[in-house]
Amino acid sequence: MSTLDTLIQDLVIANRILAREEVVDAYGHVSVRHPDNPERFLIARSLAPELVGPDDIVELDLEGRPVREEGRGLYLERFIHAAIFAARPEVMAVVHAHAEDTLPFGIAQGTKLRPVIHSGSFIGPEVPVWDIADRFGDTNLLVTDMAQAADLAQCLGRNNVALMRGHGFAAAARSLIEVVRLSVYLPRNARALLRAKQLGGEIRDLSPGEIAARNRGYSPYSVETWRAWEYWATKAGCGHLLTRPDDGRSTPPQG
Amino acid sequence: MSTLDTLIQDLVIANRILAREEVVDAYGHVSVRHPDNPERFLIARSLAPELVGPDDIVELDLEGRPVREEGRGLYLERFIHAAIFAARPEVMAVVHAHAEDTLPFGIAQGTKLRPVIHSGSFIGPEVPVWDIADRFGDTNLLVTDMAQAADLAQCLGRNNVALMRGHGFAAAARSLIEVVRLSVYLPRNARALLRAKQLGGEIRDLSPGEIAARNRGYSPYSVETWRAWEYWATKAGCGHLLTRPDDGRSTPPQG
Amino acid sequence: MSTLDTLIQDLVIANRILAREEVVDAYGHVSVRHPDNPERFLIARSLAPELVGPDDIVELDLEGRPVREEGRGLYLERFIHAAIFAARPEVMAVVHAHAEDTLPFGIAQGTKLRPVIHSGSFIGPEVPVWDIADRFGDTNLLVTDMAQAADLAQCLGRNNVALMRGHGFAAAARSLIEVVRLSVYLPRNARALLRAKQLGGEIRDLSPGEIAARNRGYSPYSVETWRAWEYWATKAGCGHLLTRPDDGRSTPPQG
Amino acid sequence: MSTLDTLIQDLVIANRILAREEVVDAYGHVSVRHPDNPERFLIARSLAPELVGPDDIVELDLEGRPVREEGRGLYLERFIHAAIFAARPEVMAVVHAHAEDTLPFGIAQGTKLRPVIHSGSFIGPEVPVWDIADRFGDTNLLVTDMAQAADLAQCLGRNNVALMRGHGFAAAARSLIEVVRLSVYLPRNARALLRAKQLGGEIRDLSPGEIAARNRGYSPYSVETWRAWEYWATKAGCGHLLTRPDDGRSTPPQG
Repeated sequence: MSTLDTLIQDLVIANRILAREEVVDAYGHVSVRHPDNPERFLIARSLAPELVGPDDIVELDLEGRPVREEGRGLYLERFIHAAIFAARPEVMAVVHAHAEDTLPFGIAQGTKLRPVIHSGSFIGPEVPVWDIADRFGDTNLLVTDMAQAADLAQCLGRNNVALMRGHGFAAAARSLIEVVRLSVYLPRNARALLRAKQLGGEIRDLSPGEIAARNRGYSPYSVETWRAWEYWATKAGCGHLLTRPDDGRSTPPQG
Repeated sequence: MSTLDTLIQDLVIANRILAREEVVDAYGHVSVRHPDNPERFLIARSLAPELVGPDDIVELDLEGRPVREEGRGLYLERFIHAAIFAARPEVMAVVHAHAEDTLPFGIAQGTKLRPVIHSGSFIGPEVPVWDIADRFGDTNLLVTDMAQAADLAQCLGRNNVALMRGHGFAAAARSLIEVVRLSVYLPRNARALLRAKQLGGEIRDLSPGEIAARNRGYSPYSVETWRAWEYWATKAGCGHLLTRPDDGRSTPPQG
Repeated sequence: MSTLDTLIQDLVIANRILAREEVVDAYGHVSVRHPDNPERFLIARSLAPELVGPDDIVELDLEGRPVREEGRGLYLERFIHAAIFAARPEVMAVVHAHAEDTLPFGIAQGTKLRPVIHSGSFIGPEVPVWDIADRFGDTNLLVTDMAQAADLAQCLGRNNVALMRGHGFAAAARSLIEVVRLSVYLPRNARALLRAKQLGGEIRDLSPGEIAARNRGYSPYSVETWRAWEYWATKAGCGHLLTRPDDGRSTPPQG
Repeated sequence: MSTLDTLIQDLVIANRILAREEVVDAYGHVSVRHPDNPERFLIARSLAPELVGPDDIVELDLEGRPVREEGRGLYLERFIHAAIFAARPEVMAVVHAHAEDTLPFGIAQGTKLRPVIHSGSFIGPEVPVWDIADRFGDTNLLVTDMAQAADLAQCLGRNNVALMRGHGFAAAARSLIEVVRLSVYLPRNARALLRAKQLGGEIRDLSPGEIAARNRGYSPYSVETWRAWEYWATKAGCGHLLTRPDDGRSTPPQG
């Protein structure tokens, strides 16, 4: 398969994993930057991620416009992806989702979301909360144009995740595998922190040095990372779509 | 298929979705107003929603009486639907259920249920709590006649949802798709609010303006709404029963 | 089928339902009084309830001894059933289980378990907590002889459920269907109460009059009760084993 | 089958059970000491436990080195197993995992994990918390060499479980069945304790005498223990791999 075909297949797998792991339901989406043209990205047409197949993948530019004529509906919030790819050249993959256990941290002012478990380290030391009302007043909370999306991307800054008040989160990473892993462990880290708070006493966060050490050691095609990708894909019923790194994988390491 | 047959099929799908999404279990029911006669509505005979098929749908009048002779048992609480359809001409679909995570808000006096996440906006700014004991004293908590049901409908008023103390909720909407969506996201909104409370600090609700903006933008046959309906139906194992809006759908937009 | 064969089949269904609904796991058991001899009861040999079939059912006397020679292992805690059947002639079915969400109420002194939701009414107005240590000191917490079991039965008294500190619960009812229903909704009621407490403010319990009204209206072979039994059996994969009341059911109403 | 083949099959079953019961996900591992050579142990190559088959089992020495040339990747944290087998001659099986509900107890200082339910007694009266930062400063939190693993084993001491701050736990037992049972009920005990705390009031722990009584009565091949192993294996889809103790089982009782 060509690099592009392999990447589209990986994007299908990513959609299915996020659905199976309950990061997305009917809503939420994942995208990947085009391997040949950094001004474009790939994302599904408007469809629940669990139902996405290769033919549902469309190519958009960094304003969120389809590159080819497209009769099918597109995600209303595709601008989130466009703005983050535009603002962050090193980012190769983006997720926007409403994973339930991340929501309370965008609503309550009392506890800041931060990494407390090692698998949560990839959310980074700082998780800003973006409130669409701050600049856009009373909206339907959806990010439906480039101005709103650019404002969200600015709030995200150099971080890996921004919570969106009353809505969900946006996550950015250097590869599809990374953004999926981050998105799966983000709600788990949120639950661990919520429950630690219920147990009382001082809470021991990951230190900045620990977060940095984990980040340094991370490689998207390591044996350890592949292990999770293979497992999640199998659980999601699409293990047969996997392209093993040692199968003469044509996807170049991303980022 | 005729309009009526399509609507019956949609009602079967709604039953299965509500079961799969754990809004109902053996108990709870969903109904839709008759497309040709606003004085009647369609609902299953007494049967767990997961097991409902087209032949289980019966037609009742606005006093909860079967229009045709019916040897099979009917839902004891069918009066809830009758009274809401009678009081609210614009309402086309009703759900009564005991979704677990809505129950605490009908029992505890300390925290009012209100929308805190964008998908919860459809519950509306005000969710009254109806206590059957206020007017009817010690009962088995079931709504088993028109007097009780009318009292519940009065408490519901112009709102979309009323909690029923120690029992569950009643929800009303302009279409089957809407009432299902509202019923699926109601418990999610309840969980998000409960957990936000546990995190402490001020809680940021959806503003009245945000609730209104979301409501204005909502269309039951939009691409976004269809996406959820299709996804939930597929998860519930009845994707093959879907009638796509673009398949020359005969169901007129409801309400 | 004979009355006895039908009852054995119902007991198999009860085992599977309790497993599917996570009331039992590898441990926990359900029994029914013998239809022809009130001094005997039927229960599975030592086997996880999910795996129980008709050939696994054995007949014990009210001291927990097998009526026929039995080479297979028996439940260590079968005495719980024997003692409750001995103490309560009107009881026709017993469950002992460790359903997870009932456990906190047997451990913490701060909140008494009591009915707060209508489906929880069958646990009754009073749920005593039995602590094996009170009379038997340091044990392995299992009820392994008649003296311990009789003490538990005495604590249960005329109530429907007793919590067992650090261990689980024992429930008694007038029929298999009732004891299963009670056991399924007991953890749900426990969760609703725990979460209501987290929401804060006054908690509105079911009133004694409401509990009594529900109990009066209850019939194990009503359309409403059958609806749940049929649903749970179908979910548990043994809908084909159901004997419908209108199929010339040979099981006489129990109790 | 030979003793070794049977044990490898049991290790495969243990992997699948731990995955099905959500003790492990893509990460986490289980090992067993070699039946013929106490200086060696068996563990899967780097692979998600749910996907492990007999051919994935490798043999390592007590420094975590493969005994035979091995081209496939190994678990980074295999040293945990090596160090515990080295320090504890009576230990025959080890689990390292990140079971979600154990995590809060390794993060929050306010509530010590200890047994509160009878099935949790096997975690023992004392559950130390090991913090890798105490001796090794800022790391990626993984135990990737013998020095770190020996430090963890020292913290574990004679106990059955040590929590690892921000990471997970390590558990040791006298047989595969025991370490699996302990690992399955450890998160359940953690949840019961967390919720008991939320209910308020004094919490009644298992007494030291109760823990000792349960431990004395425990036998890895008793009818009761087998019941759980058979059930979990069946649920995990590998009931067909079970070797019944009465099938002329060749595995000698371990420890």
